[in-house]
Amino acid sequence: MTSRTFLRNFLNYGNPVVTIFSGSYCSRLYFHQTPVCKVAWQAETGFKPSKVAVVTKTTRYEFEQQRYLYAELSEEDLKQLLALKGSSYFGLLERHNIHTHNVGQIVDNLQKEGIEVRIVKRREYDEDTVRWADAIVSAGGDGTMLLVASKVFDKNKPVIAVNTDPERSEGHLCLPVRYTHTFSDALQKLRNGEFSWQWRQRIRMHLEGTGINPTPVDLHEQQLSLEQHSKAHRTTTEAQRSTTHNYTTPCLLPVRGLNEIFIGESLSSRVKYKSFKPHLTLSHHRASYYEISIDDGPWEKQKSSGLSICTGTGSKAWSYNINKLVAQAVEDVLRIGKAKTGLDIPLNQEVIESVTEAYNESLIFGPEENKVFFSVREPIVNRVFSNSRQRGFASKICVRSRCWDACMVVDGGTSFEFNDGAIATISLCNEDLLRTVNLD
Amino acid sequence: MTSRTFLRNFLNYGNPVVTIFSGSYCSRLYFHQTPVCKVAWQAETGFKPSKVAVVTKTTRYEFEQQRYLYAELSEEDLKQLLALKGSSYFGLLERHNIHTHNVGQIVDNLQKEGIEVRIVKRREYDEDTVRWADAIVSAGGDGTMLLVASKVFDKNKPVIAVNTDPERSEGHLCLPVRYTHTFSDALQKLRNGEFSWQWRQRIRMHLEGTGINPTPVDLHEQQLSLEQHSKAHRTTTEAQRSTTHNYTTPCLLPVRGLNEIFIGESLSSRVKYKSFKPHLTLSHHRASYYEISIDDGPWEKQKSSGLSICTGTGSKAWSYNINKLVAQAVEDVLRIGKAKTGLDIPLNQEVIESVTEAYNESLIFGPEENKVFFSVREPIVNRVFSNSRQRGFASKICVRSRCWDACMVVDGGTSFEFNDGAIATISLCNEDLLRTVNLD
Repeated sequence: MTSRTFLRNFLNYGNPVVTIFSGSYCSRLYFHQTPVCKVAWQAETGFKPSKVAVVTKTTRYEFEQQRYLYAELSEEDLKQLLALKGSSYFGLLERHNIHTHNVGQIVDNLQKEGIEVRIVKRREYDEDTVRWADAIVSAGGDGTMLLVASKVFDKNKPVIAVNTDPERSEGHLCLPVRYTHTFSDALQKLRNGEFSWQWRQRIRMHLEGTGINPTPVDLHEQQLSLEQHSKAHRTTTEAQRSTTHNYTTPCLLPVRGLNEIFIGESLSSRVKYKSFKPHLTLSHHRASYYEISIDDGPWEKQKSSGLSICTGTGSKAWSYNINKLVAQAVEDVLRIGKAKTGLDIPLNQEVIESVTEAYNESLIFGPEENKVFFSVREPIVNRVFSNSRQRGFASKICVRSRCWDACMVVDGGTSFEFNDGAIATISLCNEDLLRTVNLD
Repeated sequence: MTSRTFLRNFLNYGNPVVTIFSGSYCSRLYFHQTPVCKVAWQAETGFKPSKVAVVTKTTRYEFEQQRYLYAELSEEDLKQLLALKGSSYFGLLERHNIHTHNVGQIVDNLQKEGIEVRIVKRREYDEDTVRWADAIVSAGGDGTMLLVASKVFDKNKPVIAVNTDPERSEGHLCLPVRYTHTFSDALQKLRNGEFSWQWRQRIRMHLEGTGINPTPVDLHEQQLSLEQHSKAHRTTTEAQRSTTHNYTTPCLLPVRGLNEIFIGESLSSRVKYKSFKPHLTLSHHRASYYEISIDDGPWEKQKSSGLSICTGTGSKAWSYNINKLVAQAVEDVLRIGKAKTGLDIPLNQEVIESVTEAYNESLIFGPEENKVFFSVREPIVNRVFSNSRQRGFASKICVRSRCWDACMVVDGGTSFEFNDGAIATISLCNEDLLRTVNLD
């Protein structure tokens, strides 16, 4: 393929970007096992970027090292302390090396293609990286795919994740595991158009009301070093001081939700203590009060352990775990149904498993589908709060907060204050589509 | 009744205490509607305390006033700011006055009985109060019943709660609502033995391992003023500095769980911002990793949104909401079952509701029953984490933390660090029984 061909293909796709990010160790792997929905559009022709940023994750080894070195401990102390906690220093080091090796493979293959490569640590990932690169490549898990997507607003920039540690995480948002080891094949298929685009809907949020603050707080790196913590806090504090006020007109938030947004109380107290962790946080689980309106329907009071609103992509993530039933529950329901109806409902494992599977599958929909799925988490029913629909599909959802110390968390990574007086409008818009690819 | 009789009756019950506490506004009212289990022992004879402490709750009016006054705002500003948030100043004031009136009634009735009364604000409630009083009376909701129980370790001290604002809260741990208005009748029935004791099992926890800290952190008052916040933090910090170390032998924690204990991740970041609240806390919902052993069975890896372990009392509280099914889900299961089995399962409302009710009732057991109920919350199943039993009864549960920033929260009010390396043993012991009363 000549550089002219590259250029032509490149132009066919505006500013195509192969973004392969790597997640932090603690990325939320809430995915279950059924294969990713493959509904997508065939690429008319291949594409090949000329500038690629490779962003690498913070492995748990790096994380622990960072914490302990911050506490002025030696590598030897680290070994002993990890052993005390039942973790193996060498185990972590091995995972770290596997990740590092896979990242190396990716970089080599890109350079063999004559692509300009820039390696970026995930905590250094920013809009400039996205702007500079017409292709961003890295190897990682689902957690960072979410971080990455949160900074990509150009729907012509496909985001592709490669799982750099397949034995440790599912990586449902990543390319099939085999491409971790044969990344050159993936590049060839992309170049030859042997792939399909997977467009993913994303949630946009408008906030209005009193005491709201449209400044996002990035939680992705919260588990990193104390230095980074304090930095993050100082930064946010400044940002917030300058922006907290009353919004009488809806304010579009600067992030999009690829998986879901979660609204709920989060009363916590910060307690410094002698430890390697920057701080100890204690969460007091409380009921969340709010009012909800589905598709401009009537406002309805709700009291629950929060509210989840997900996309098709997210319907396989946290939302799935909120709503799915385990076989044990299905068996109980069928047994009670059998007793109540007197019908001879068979309660063998086969029936129970097929019902359970069908029920759980019904919770999943395609990433490109133009609708969201809401779930009232652990709804509380009493004479004050009636519980009507616990969940369902919608194209627009409005939520009025009655919470005390709540937040709206986007993809578990970005958070906004959401207290009494604030109103959020959740919707979808084709402008917000995220371009990813499917490789067989 | 002569003072001799009082004395005799008093001696019959060691050091009986009628403890009627009032909850803070934000008490967790996770209770559903079925009546409280009435299994109990008939009192052989009545009892009457001679010293009673009346502990009063912080109403939301007091709470808001405190916050706003702290920000040097006038009562007039308070009115306007509450209005902005869609809350009514006069509404809050009305609830406050109803509570205050009911507390007054209780105090009057006690004094008419010649009982020495001491009035204590809930945030002033401490072990000295419990020690001084041979009867502590207050009017309040379930939230403070939990706070109260957390400081009562003498199983001869019955705890009784009166709901001071029945229109606003369920008060399932409180006396029947009518006694709120006819407290003298309640006192008479207690005196004449026209009641039964309700013994409630409580959960005890042993902690062992590395990096654990047996110093409890009280979350009950977290929603109060900034002064109290900083005070609480300073205190705790000092306490913890002096006590964080490695426990090689199990350490019995200084609290008991009346409702439940919850174990889960709680990664949060503390962000100061211009507001009346002391701080804004953002919670990043993460999967919790841990290993669990039921009744000395094999250790099993779990990944979920936390683990709940409740008593019979708590089986109607948060645990109920974690496990209960809404009619919508039951209908879906039966519909799928109908399709899969080809049986003519009737899907009318009557059947669906009776199955739903029977299923949910099966989650509840008696407060005095000598067992706990565990629930894996939102279990995560993938090729790494198999999900076996999601829930069940047990008499002993061991949990080994694999969490990063987790805590063990007792009755939503007291919290302990519970991170990688820590092992908790959860059990019941008759020493820990809480004595409450049932009045018809």
